[in-house]
Amino acid sequence: MKKFIISGFLVLICFTGAWAADKTPTVLSNKEAIDLVQTHADYVWTLVAAALVFFMQAGFAMVETGFTRAKNAINIMMKNMMDFAMGSLAFWAVGFGLMFGVSKTGWFGTSGFFLSDFKPGGDPWVLAFWMFQVVFAATAATIVSGAMAERTKFVGYLIYSVVISLLIYPVFGSWAWGGLYKGGGWLEHLGFIDFAGSTVVHSVGGWASLAGTLVLGPRIGKYMKDGTIKPILGHNIPLAALGVFILWLGWFGFNPGSTTAANKDIAMIFVNTNLAAAAGATLAMITAWIKFGKPDAGMTLNGALAGLVAITSPCASVSPLSAIIIGAIAGVIVVLAVLFFDRIRIDDPVGAISVHGVCGAWGTLSAGIFNIGGTSLKIIGVQLLGIAACFLWVFPTAFLLFKLIDVTIGLRVSPEEELEGLDFTEHGGTAYPDFEISHAGGMGSTAGFGSLMGGTASEKMLRKPAEQT
Amino acid sequence: MKKFIISGFLVLICFTGAWAADKTPTVLSNKEAIDLVQTHADYVWTLVAAALVFFMQAGFAMVETGFTRAKNAINIMMKNMMDFAMGSLAFWAVGFGLMFGVSKTGWFGTSGFFLSDFKPGGDPWVLAFWMFQVVFAATAATIVSGAMAERTKFVGYLIYSVVISLLIYPVFGSWAWGGLYKGGGWLEHLGFIDFAGSTVVHSVGGWASLAGTLVLGPRIGKYMKDGTIKPILGHNIPLAALGVFILWLGWFGFNPGSTTAANKDIAMIFVNTNLAAAAGATLAMITAWIKFGKPDAGMTLNGALAGLVAITSPCASVSPLSAIIIGAIAGVIVVLAVLFFDRIRIDDPVGAISVHGVCGAWGTLSAGIFNIGGTSLKIIGVQLLGIAACFLWVFPTAFLLFKLIDVTIGLRVSPEEELEGLDFTEHGGTAYPDFEISHAGGMGSTAGFGSLMGGTASEKMLRKPAEQT
Amino acid sequence: MKKFIISGFLVLICFTGAWAADKTPTVLSNKEAIDLVQTHADYVWTLVAAALVFFMQAGFAMVETGFTRAKNAINIMMKNMMDFAMGSLAFWAVGFGLMFGVSKTGWFGTSGFFLSDFKPGGDPWVLAFWMFQVVFAATAATIVSGAMAERTKFVGYLIYSVVISLLIYPVFGSWAWGGLYKGGGWLEHLGFIDFAGSTVVHSVGGWASLAGTLVLGPRIGKYMKDGTIKPILGHNIPLAALGVFILWLGWFGFNPGSTTAANKDIAMIFVNTNLAAAAGATLAMITAWIKFGKPDAGMTLNGALAGLVAITSPCASVSPLSAIIIGAIAGVIVVLAVLFFDRIRIDDPVGAISVHGVCGAWGTLSAGIFNIGGTSLKIIGVQLLGIAACFLWVFPTAFLLFKLIDVTIGLRVSPEEELEGLDFTEHGGTAYPDFEISHAGGMGSTAGFGSLMGGTASEKMLRKPAEQT
Repeated sequence: MKKFIISGFLVLICFTGAWAADKTPTVLSNKEAIDLVQTHADYVWTLVAAALVFFMQAGFAMVETGFTRAKNAINIMMKNMMDFAMGSLAFWAVGFGLMFGVSKTGWFGTSGFFLSDFKPGGDPWVLAFWMFQVVFAATAATIVSGAMAERTKFVGYLIYSVVISLLIYPVFGSWAWGGLYKGGGWLEHLGFIDFAGSTVVHSVGGWASLAGTLVLGPRIGKYMKDGTIKPILGHNIPLAALGVFILWLGWFGFNPGSTTAANKDIAMIFVNTNLAAAAGATLAMITAWIKFGKPDAGMTLNGALAGLVAITSPCASVSPLSAIIIGAIAGVIVVLAVLFFDRIRIDDPVGAISVHGVCGAWGTLSAGIFNIGGTSLKIIGVQLLGIAACFLWVFPTAFLLFKLIDVTIGLRVSPEEELEGLDFTEHGGTAYPDFEISHAGGMGSTAGFGSLMGGTASEKMLRKPAEQT
Repeated sequence: MKKFIISGFLVLICFTGAWAADKTPTVLSNKEAIDLVQTHADYVWTLVAAALVFFMQAGFAMVETGFTRAKNAINIMMKNMMDFAMGSLAFWAVGFGLMFGVSKTGWFGTSGFFLSDFKPGGDPWVLAFWMFQVVFAATAATIVSGAMAERTKFVGYLIYSVVISLLIYPVFGSWAWGGLYKGGGWLEHLGFIDFAGSTVVHSVGGWASLAGTLVLGPRIGKYMKDGTIKPILGHNIPLAALGVFILWLGWFGFNPGSTTAANKDIAMIFVNTNLAAAAGATLAMITAWIKFGKPDAGMTLNGALAGLVAITSPCASVSPLSAIIIGAIAGVIVVLAVLFFDRIRIDDPVGAISVHGVCGAWGTLSAGIFNIGGTSLKIIGVQLLGIAACFLWVFPTAFLLFKLIDVTIGLRVSPEEELEGLDFTEHGGTAYPDFEISHAGGMGSTAGFGSLMGGTASEKMLRKPAEQT
Repeated sequence: MKKFIISGFLVLICFTGAWAADKTPTVLSNKEAIDLVQTHADYVWTLVAAALVFFMQAGFAMVETGFTRAKNAINIMMKNMMDFAMGSLAFWAVGFGLMFGVSKTGWFGTSGFFLSDFKPGGDPWVLAFWMFQVVFAATAATIVSGAMAERTKFVGYLIYSVVISLLIYPVFGSWAWGGLYKGGGWLEHLGFIDFAGSTVVHSVGGWASLAGTLVLGPRIGKYMKDGTIKPILGHNIPLAALGVFILWLGWFGFNPGSTTAANKDIAMIFVNTNLAAAAGATLAMITAWIKFGKPDAGMTLNGALAGLVAITSPCASVSPLSAIIIGAIAGVIVVLAVLFFDRIRIDDPVGAISVHGVCGAWGTLSAGIFNIGGTSLKIIGVQLLGIAACFLWVFPTAFLLFKLIDVTIGLRVSPEEELEGLDFTEHGGTAYPDFEISHAGGMGSTAGFGSLMGGTASEKMLRKPAEQT
């Protein structure tokens, strides 16, 4: 009975006299047949991994809505859905060609737009590869929605999300991943190591977040004129935690899937990914515990993500013990970075700049330091060059983009709209119409994310939840 | 150390002198060995895809509860859990045999009940295939729970869900997918193209939804005697969005898994699935924006689903550009269809008839129009015949079934129970006992789903969420 | 263009003169090449399955928070995140070596600590196998967080979770799964059947839960001095249902992944897993309906889990019909067990002892009774011996551990902290700051889990949700 449905369709399709694509020749040598089975395994693995990475969109959506307020929950969902939807179309039309097309200069590709490298009847690998790459592009794009949450005009965000998927991400990507067989990018020619994208994906998203946050300014009520810093609490910590679990899962596609081949290398990449995340969560929890006196949930969740971001670059080229060290350091860094950005009044509601920008840079550097084949000043120098190149390309272009949006259609909603909540003003809805929304809600920790650290005693009383038995 | 656990068990099992099933002969030719490895890859891919499709049950549960009221959340969860559980047993006992058994007439199969095609020691492919098919049957069944939400008796729904999995879905399925090797269905003999089931799965669910909604009538408070249409808002938009992300993920099993083989074809199916969903979400958002003045979340989320439903039939036989067009048109259709059914006072709380019935029909037609091997009036005619056959089989039988339930045990709860909420009256519980439920809640858009479009100005004021900083 | 990124990196890595790990020799015989492709498929399947099992952590987190109160939601999330994170590190350092290292005595392993069996350049299978095993260890650990919910000190829980991953789980695991090639455990030498761990994973978690619950005592307000039993309701049933869907999905990695090989056996394991879960949910619903007069959601959800736990041991060695029977019996057992433990005043907020302990034992016994190769008193005797050995190892050691924690740093929070909620007192936060928390909430069924069965008439009135139209 096996596969008769498919066979039936293939028969029918052949009867129409067309689409004889990728048919197996009637006689294959054993060697060719073995290669074909391996190729089939490569397709399955690469595409299953792509599905897992796609699911990270849900993870980001849950983390971002969990760490922000109820009145902006629809808006966050719409941004996360639409940056993937519109980003997919932009990456299909232009981004993929810029990133992976033939590159004569080493600075961007110039072929393969609109998936034109694929011809019906030709080798469909370009489609599998596109599928894997589009979910990476979307990851870079969606990181920014968290940092710019609760105050950005929806239409402005849509424009940004198209431009990053179409231009900013692919151009940097072509430098590091453009492909030696197609001319290649200048960074990969130098030997830059960024296996699954600590820099290519996460720092790109992180530095674009920084630009967006600076152009937008902080949320109303976050930084007081008298110098006090008001925490603004996330409204649903279980959803945020679910998001982190989903992201951790998705990373098992993100890192080992970057082999784009079914081989033995994926085992160490899985293990390194898991251990770095575990160490990141653990050290972030401990760091928060020391600094705040309590094991803060928001910091711990971000610690797991910090470890994952950091191991993304070196996952295929360091030992499991090194992975633990890299993740642990990321867990400490992320707590300090979140506090640092809050102190200098850069309002990043979910900690995206710290998690993706800073820990992406750390991970990329660590790939040089902990390289299983040995390190050298040259290797570390190239890693630092790549980190710098990313910042110098992404931050100015993203800043310019956000400024352009700001002075034309406007990047930020009005203060009235911000106070009212973007769900109602931007989307005409409310995320939780059946529930009573608390007026005392939305106040919290220095770090935000739903914890209560750092507030004054009176604030703590105010935030005390209703007693129940 | 590799696989020693398993080996240990196999040794033990052999010691009991039994179950030498599926053992590799001691000497295989290279050709046989290559075929065996490919077969193993087919098993892995088909079953991983089945797992992804299973997860769509969670997606439907989240979408349906998110788009309905808090007082019916337990009921929706129970329906989604039980239609899968009881449907699995019904499809095991009867449905699979009707759909995929030997069919002499072309109208239904007559063998393979209770998985009797599988003998211990024999080829287990029938089990892998059953697993992939049972999650499809369950998808058709669970679509209906959304359309009939908030007013259906639980026991009546259970009876329906068994009958659709046991009879209605398998009989139509046998016409289109019954298998050329086993006699085959009359539709597939004609050349009907429905690769992964826009009609076989989604329209079946959609037309059964239409029948159920008509027998039930609208929810109390939805259509006023003075002609006004009251929106009834969904209570948790982030959960609905999570559901759409989960469904999108599951569709990466649904469509490419329908190869039931690990081959290169899955790449184009992945890409087409993703691009159609992206285009569907984008065009639905734009359509809603034009019609309502705001980018409505409920419509956008349903637009993604509309694109996915539409591409399900043609996913393996159209180009990526065609997939974008097909999805985009589905995104426009779904908004218009939701508004149409609301205007003619068919109360479908989640838009299931529009998403699955109407866009399923559109997708099936598009498979004829955009066929990569060329189209013809004959091809389009067969597609239209298949669409019509589905409606003519499913709608009357489902209508009769729901009427029979209605006149015997009753299909709809009493008005008092409906006002109280089905969680308390049907299940003796409440989904959110720790939260204050708002009396003003549950009012919203024409389309429902949690948006506020189309209400009067005073309604909008009423629905304004509590202000917070 | 295929795999050019990876190739690029490999080239670069080779240039550094290091890490020639696992390179394919330049000339492979066809037989060797076939074996290599099969090995690649084994890696992919085992690691994809590991990813699915990892995701069960999210499932447990959602079930446990859904079945407990809003004031402890952060605490449950943190426990579920940290038992995986710290458990991963503990299993890396010690647990894996104790469980799978060379075992001369049959009682525990003594090699492979800190993943020292892996050498760069050597066979990475040990890494794939570790990855699959660490998610199993974490499952055993995380089961306990539900049973001990709402009253356990966070730091005490962390200590427990390290010890179970480091010592209690691995030692028992070595008896049953330690590996015949490495000396093997005494239980596997006797022929003990526990394919995927009804006993090794689930009963270990269940009996540790029992010990923890006994040392802790019941939650305040659960058992009154006048003998009445107060239900304490779960705060979010949709999240609990989502958790069950996620766990069901994860079990498609848990059971068939335990082949740790891509072969045909996974088909029957998938089917058995699904049918047992379906039967478990169905029979638990019916049993609850008979006992309470309504189809209770909490019991039904636990029924699905009960079926899954029970089929875990026999999934590879019973027929699909047997799987239905095994799951159905588990569905009845779990309802009776939950009511039994409540009657003897053992307060298990989520039913973990019943689901994992009792149904784990039943499943292990059923593997002997329904063995597809025939059964005997000897087989059943060995199964009973394994069940007893698990209890006799886990319960006393876990009880001692919890007592030690109790008398040193303290296992239970103060009554004031318990009433206030652990989110605020242990983590300084609140999970839902934007929502009004109801004072009347948190009262419910005998069984808990969000249902209202078994309360008095006046309680039912009290718990009646706000009426809405």
